[in-house]
Amino acid sequence: MRILIIGGNGTIGNPVATKFAEAYEVIIAGRNSGEINIDIADSASIRAAFEKTGKLDAIVCIAGEAKWAAFNDLSEEDYYIGLRSKLMGQVNVARIGREFLNPGGSITLSTGILADDPVLMTTSAAMVNGGVHSFVQAAALEMENGHRINAVSLGMVEAAYEKYKGYFPGHNPVPMDVTVNAYVRSVFGTDNGKVLRFY
Amino acid sequence: MRILIIGGNGTIGNPVATKFAEAYEVIIAGRNSGEINIDIADSASIRAAFEKTGKLDAIVCIAGEAKWAAFNDLSEEDYYIGLRSKLMGQVNVARIGREFLNPGGSITLSTGILADDPVLMTTSAAMVNGGVHSFVQAAALEMENGHRINAVSLGMVEAAYEKYKGYFPGHNPVPMDVTVNAYVRSVFGTDNGKVLRFY
Repeated sequence: MRILIIGGNGTIGNPVATKFAEAYEVIIAGRNSGEINIDIADSASIRAAFEKTGKLDAIVCIAGEAKWAAFNDLSEEDYYIGLRSKLMGQVNVARIGREFLNPGGSITLSTGILADDPVLMTTSAAMVNGGVHSFVQAAALEMENGHRINAVSLGMVEAAYEKYKGYFPGHNPVPMDVTVNAYVRSVFGTDNGKVLRFY
Repeated sequence: MRILIIGGNGTIGNPVATKFAEAYEVIIAGRNSGEINIDIADSASIRAAFEKTGKLDAIVCIAGEAKWAAFNDLSEEDYYIGLRSKLMGQVNVARIGREFLNPGGSITLSTGILADDPVLMTTSAAMVNGGVHSFVQAAALEMENGHRINAVSLGMVEAAYEKYKGYFPGHNPVPMDVTVNAYVRSVFGTDNGKVLRFY
């Protein structure tokens, strides 16, 4: 089983990649690290990356950015950072990645608690996460060749707690084993069109 | 009370505008009809429209488009039709409209059942609706001057049933009085950051 993890060297991606690599072939792609270079905000870069990976059994995207700033300060162009990356970047990973997915393969996108339960300064970040949630539910209705698609939506993960806790007063960090298991479930379970929430 | 209804001559907009006009001053804006011209996909057009309306007590947006097509057929550019119009168009109505809103005023955006419960050919339409749902929840946390913001999310409305029922097998049409009341509740009630679902 060949699994591509986009963002596989990140805070969440690294433990997921480590777990999957215990039993499967894992290919890590990233903007600045990994075996394959990919910028998900650029669909040509996505296609070039998949042409390097060849056929896959699972595609996991733990990447994408959006600008955090006060609603008063976010410009229209600021919103497009997230629209091009976290939202359309992940949609394009699904659109293009499907062509490189073996029958029965899966696509897992990543979102977060902000879609359902935002905090200050997240009008853009919440928006793109919510868009991905609805996208995977709609896309699942049109998957072919036994493909599945899900989103993993996590609260603030334990490994990022110290850095981000100020933005999430009173939120309970999501343990890293729960975090990894969310991706295990999406890739190795039977879910399709689900938002796997672990808050 | 001065209420701007963007899309106030449409299938849903018209009965909402008629109801509101019984007791309040209603200004109708539209792309091709109404007293004021507005194309919500163009933020300069939005600003120009608000400069014509002057100060308002409520802004209601019942406008925005997204391309319906099979997941296999939607191009990246097709998704951007919805991103620029239904999603960022409504975000920009909120961003810019706030400047023209009297203290205690409200903003009401429009989405639909696809965000939660999509049908075939709606990967783009569902996505943008889901984005708006999360946006209003996040934006509500940062409203100032007693402003409120909500989204009205309707199922297929009765007045559009004959035209669209083929896309929504087994869905029950939402009566027009329920449809109008959803907007009444958002504008005249106390909700803030809510997705008012009537499916």
